[in-house]
Amino acid sequence: MVIIMKMGATEAEKAAVLSRVEAAGFRPFINPGVERTVIALLGEVDIDKVELVDIFANMAGVERVQLISDPFKLSSRQVHPEPMVVPVGDGGVAIGGSTLVVMAGPCSVESREQILESAAVVRAAGGAILRGGAFKPRTSPHSFQCLGEAGLALLAEARAATGLPIVAEVMDPHEVDLVSQYADMLQIGARNQQNFALLRAVGRSSRPILLKRGPGTKIKDFLMAAEYVLAEGNPNVVLCERGIISFEDATRYTCDINAVPVLKRLSHLPVIVDPSHATGDWALVEPIALAGIAAGADGLIIEVHPDPQHARSDGKQSLKPKRFAALMERLARLAPVVDRQLPLAVRAG
Amino acid sequence: MVIIMKMGATEAEKAAVLSRVEAAGFRPFINPGVERTVIALLGEVDIDKVELVDIFANMAGVERVQLISDPFKLSSRQVHPEPMVVPVGDGGVAIGGSTLVVMAGPCSVESREQILESAAVVRAAGGAILRGGAFKPRTSPHSFQCLGEAGLALLAEARAATGLPIVAEVMDPHEVDLVSQYADMLQIGARNQQNFALLRAVGRSSRPILLKRGPGTKIKDFLMAAEYVLAEGNPNVVLCERGIISFEDATRYTCDINAVPVLKRLSHLPVIVDPSHATGDWALVEPIALAGIAAGADGLIIEVHPDPQHARSDGKQSLKPKRFAALMERLARLAPVVDRQLPLAVRAG
Amino acid sequence: MVIIMKMGATEAEKAAVLSRVEAAGFRPFINPGVERTVIALLGEVDIDKVELVDIFANMAGVERVQLISDPFKLSSRQVHPEPMVVPVGDGGVAIGGSTLVVMAGPCSVESREQILESAAVVRAAGGAILRGGAFKPRTSPHSFQCLGEAGLALLAEARAATGLPIVAEVMDPHEVDLVSQYADMLQIGARNQQNFALLRAVGRSSRPILLKRGPGTKIKDFLMAAEYVLAEGNPNVVLCERGIISFEDATRYTCDINAVPVLKRLSHLPVIVDPSHATGDWALVEPIALAGIAAGADGLIIEVHPDPQHARSDGKQSLKPKRFAALMERLARLAPVVDRQLPLAVRAG
Amino acid sequence: MVIIMKMGATEAEKAAVLSRVEAAGFRPFINPGVERTVIALLGEVDIDKVELVDIFANMAGVERVQLISDPFKLSSRQVHPEPMVVPVGDGGVAIGGSTLVVMAGPCSVESREQILESAAVVRAAGGAILRGGAFKPRTSPHSFQCLGEAGLALLAEARAATGLPIVAEVMDPHEVDLVSQYADMLQIGARNQQNFALLRAVGRSSRPILLKRGPGTKIKDFLMAAEYVLAEGNPNVVLCERGIISFEDATRYTCDINAVPVLKRLSHLPVIVDPSHATGDWALVEPIALAGIAAGADGLIIEVHPDPQHARSDGKQSLKPKRFAALMERLARLAPVVDRQLPLAVRAG
Repeated sequence: MVIIMKMGATEAEKAAVLSRVEAAGFRPFINPGVERTVIALLGEVDIDKVELVDIFANMAGVERVQLISDPFKLSSRQVHPEPMVVPVGDGGVAIGGSTLVVMAGPCSVESREQILESAAVVRAAGGAILRGGAFKPRTSPHSFQCLGEAGLALLAEARAATGLPIVAEVMDPHEVDLVSQYADMLQIGARNQQNFALLRAVGRSSRPILLKRGPGTKIKDFLMAAEYVLAEGNPNVVLCERGIISFEDATRYTCDINAVPVLKRLSHLPVIVDPSHATGDWALVEPIALAGIAAGADGLIIEVHPDPQHARSDGKQSLKPKRFAALMERLARLAPVVDRQLPLAVRAG
Repeated sequence: MVIIMKMGATEAEKAAVLSRVEAAGFRPFINPGVERTVIALLGEVDIDKVELVDIFANMAGVERVQLISDPFKLSSRQVHPEPMVVPVGDGGVAIGGSTLVVMAGPCSVESREQILESAAVVRAAGGAILRGGAFKPRTSPHSFQCLGEAGLALLAEARAATGLPIVAEVMDPHEVDLVSQYADMLQIGARNQQNFALLRAVGRSSRPILLKRGPGTKIKDFLMAAEYVLAEGNPNVVLCERGIISFEDATRYTCDINAVPVLKRLSHLPVIVDPSHATGDWALVEPIALAGIAAGADGLIIEVHPDPQHARSDGKQSLKPKRFAALMERLARLAPVVDRQLPLAVRAG
Repeated sequence: MVIIMKMGATEAEKAAVLSRVEAAGFRPFINPGVERTVIALLGEVDIDKVELVDIFANMAGVERVQLISDPFKLSSRQVHPEPMVVPVGDGGVAIGGSTLVVMAGPCSVESREQILESAAVVRAAGGAILRGGAFKPRTSPHSFQCLGEAGLALLAEARAATGLPIVAEVMDPHEVDLVSQYADMLQIGARNQQNFALLRAVGRSSRPILLKRGPGTKIKDFLMAAEYVLAEGNPNVVLCERGIISFEDATRYTCDINAVPVLKRLSHLPVIVDPSHATGDWALVEPIALAGIAAGADGLIIEVHPDPQHARSDGKQSLKPKRFAALMERLARLAPVVDRQLPLAVRAG
Repeated sequence: MVIIMKMGATEAEKAAVLSRVEAAGFRPFINPGVERTVIALLGEVDIDKVELVDIFANMAGVERVQLISDPFKLSSRQVHPEPMVVPVGDGGVAIGGSTLVVMAGPCSVESREQILESAAVVRAAGGAILRGGAFKPRTSPHSFQCLGEAGLALLAEARAATGLPIVAEVMDPHEVDLVSQYADMLQIGARNQQNFALLRAVGRSSRPILLKRGPGTKIKDFLMAAEYVLAEGNPNVVLCERGIISFEDATRYTCDINAVPVLKRLSHLPVIVDPSHATGDWALVEPIALAGIAAGADGLIIEVHPDPQHARSDGKQSLKPKRFAALMERLARLAPVVDRQLPLAVRAG
């Protein structure tokens, strides 16, 4: 159930509603960032809901009360009819508006030279955010395990050099503060998508969150993971489709392009696509990137490496700088077909 | 193994190669429709292949001999580097070239009025081929089972009225002749994609074949089904991605957009996408149609119904005429982004 | 809707009900092989069903009228509370009763010697039915394509030598008569499980049918395929779980053992398991065979080959005679745990 | 690569080998719990391995050097040919030996009365370990979130009352110590199966670990997760198959019974099956439990609740005490068929 307050509702009226919500045994959730205050009732209470609707509907300052059928209450479009625009960094980058956002960079931060060169490539081609793994989950404990905090420092140096905000993965609830000191946006990786302790921890952060879909997670459970973040008070979640598992083994994962319009219909949160991890094959990155945008995605996250053949992880799926620039030009031509645009830099190129 | 003959190879030289192939115990397959004659060696022969390569490479008129690693020999791009263009009907429609081809129409032929109205709608919006089920597989034997030959006659009438060639499904090897009397293109439905008796039967037909991917079939086995058709001598096969099964139940099937660039890379055969059956939801047809074309498809097959709410089958996924026209206009804007075009009619509109 | 007649209902009463069913626009289906006559109403009729229930319930000789919620009406346990026992051949073999039935033999009939030796092995170890492919679907048109009618004749010879009834696959609606001349039971292979033309053809046969589940078919659609056979008047269908596709690639298919109790709950038809095709690995055949029986299956179908290393197809999954005998002995010990038994021969061994 | 030392190898010989391993740039891993010392070489080193084999093979005290093809080195049967037996608690319970181990109890600890009654039921029927969620991952943040430490204390009280060791889930790396104070065995839930921070944390614990397979994880990646635990020095890992996702929706998950013999073949670690979460349906628990044991599992984990209809979570899949007792009796009859036994209590019953 959500209670939509009138536009001019007073603080006293809101307070009265809130205390009534608590009296009924619910946890009230005040939805930030919308024109009028919306209060969601959370918790499992054994109560006659229809009667409760009546009570709230008749309180002062309440416009209307709505029963929500979606189980993901806070991430539901039923509660937020307007799309959410998520700001990243303080240079004006925002995901979910009319401008498509492309995040790009290497899979892992390997060296100062590599990340600075990558950042320059990303910026020159019109990318808006720099990505790069410092803490990275590896399927095998015996594989290269990344640079850790030293990698974060290099990312920050690359930000200083290019002005690009940076997104970096966080893997442990107790590392959220550390990663937040460096990164503008925190990534929850696919393997941690149902790590509820971690979701709660980033829900208490002030950084926007890039939430990657687990490869075996249904769309409705994916939204439930977003719900964990939102329920802790962080409204800035960007959803990322990065391929699901299926019987087809011609591609590493099956990029579920269908999820893009389905997520946009169910939720107000922005949606981006990761064609690099989904396909595991650089030659498929461009067609799937274009497909994602054509299907309505708000942006992309792409692996770019100055020298893919010598990358320490996932080189097979990384684009060379030249191919990345070609993709960005193609995207600039595609954007208006779906009533979007790319930043000025690319359009000029 | 394939033997590529020189451009000026004489008939005598070809005959000598063919008889040597047969002497070695193979069935020779002469590949039609390419600039120079290519002879594929079919069959399982227990022989030293390297030695055989030498023998053929030294025969008169032979340019080179190539060992093929793909198991789908005849549908492999290793054998046919140039994309195949498949003509449909005799009015100049061709699938696989620079012009995108949109097939559209109702799921089932229901009445004379319905199919004539549908055909007019399809033509007006720039569709190139009319689809409509006359013999249709239904999961339940107790469901509406279509009009049969009477439906084919109505389709033919719609062709006469609009000039659109027609595609219709064939379900029984012994009905291939009957359906061929009416239809310009024969469709093999998803449920019959590994019905080898049927594949062989249409392989002996002179009609082009629209082969739909089975929802549980891997890409390499899908190409093997095409191989059955090609091996009987019919080179005109169009592949159709129409959704695969997966754990995700938010959409009826998971439209495997990734299959489009993978199929185009592995095979010379044209590829189209069916967003209507894949998603089962008219609201998802446009984003997935655009995604398919953005990923490199040569065309689409779309369900359009003048009155979806009263359709006898699959109304939920059918576009209304107005929405179909809007999709065609959007496609006309998308086409040049992927270096394609739509027929003049749409571009003018 | 089904109409259950009283135990002493007269022919005149039945006839009256039947003509009333037809008058209402339905196709009546009289269910054979149960104590009292049950008449199912098939077809899609736009009619007030509640009113109709009243009409039939008040006719003479009618015990009660039941609305069926399952879409698979004829294969539903709602209609047939008692399990079906399917006789095979005329030597007393029956599937679905208290005796477990093991079908065994080579994947393909390769030679007279091979099939006679296999039959002797199967019989000696206590197998009840001989299997062997004469017409076999092969994914590639370039693979070994089996012996055809000559293979059927060899199977018949093996039956004469051992007394074992034989099961053989039929792939084309127009070969049903031919295969029926030799085989005691007709198999519909997994790839043809939704080949509705073929299902209808075997539905008109008097032979019992072994229906293998398509690897991408949901349980409810699998029962719908059985429904096609039953709807043509053939009540003798045995369902076979043979592995479904999934993301897991450690086994060829994922044998869906869960399907065994689910099918037994939904339908009255017997269920067997094929661990050989499901796993594709002889070393996994015994554990999965035991698991299938432990889960409630009525029998098994197992590949046995006198010389697996030289088998022309699927040798990797075939048991050697000695291992097959060991499996049969283990099964004889397992049977009483699930309140079943094996034929006397095995128990004696 | 693993180095197998001779049975009488001296400490000095071992130390020499270890320092040579480190000199080559590898991290040595000494495998506990086997007759002779086995040293595994971990890490990615760019070195000529064949040459290295020679060097080690010629050192004093070395019996032989083996190159390991499995990527999961420490959990591989190539390294540990003998099955691992994992002790739980100090009352003689051990998983992986000739005695089948059944863990049972409610999904969540709800009250003192509920858990004490459950424990008595489990013990009376012959269960060996008590399960019960105190910290439980819930898909929705708005669902009942369990009792936390108070739940653990109740479990400990139930242990004191019955003598049953207890297994409880841990969700956060920083709660490992807390949960270890109460529980005899730590469970890693399916959603955290690739939470590498958590795997590392329990790898440093002295408690045995129950590792549940992620529903979208391939067998080889499941073993990689075990590898994370083993690599930190904890050799006591029990693997649990609890259902994978698939297209089939007749059961909540598809219990991958095939995984049981595959895991037993690849790894020395014990394997158990969770039919309750896999099927989500109490009526399917018995057939799938029997199937798991028939396929070779070392035990089961079963949800039992004294009053399933009023359970706060997962009541639909919980067995009533009477049905649990019936299952245990059936298991006692099945055990000898697979050369196992149940504890004396059950056999007596």
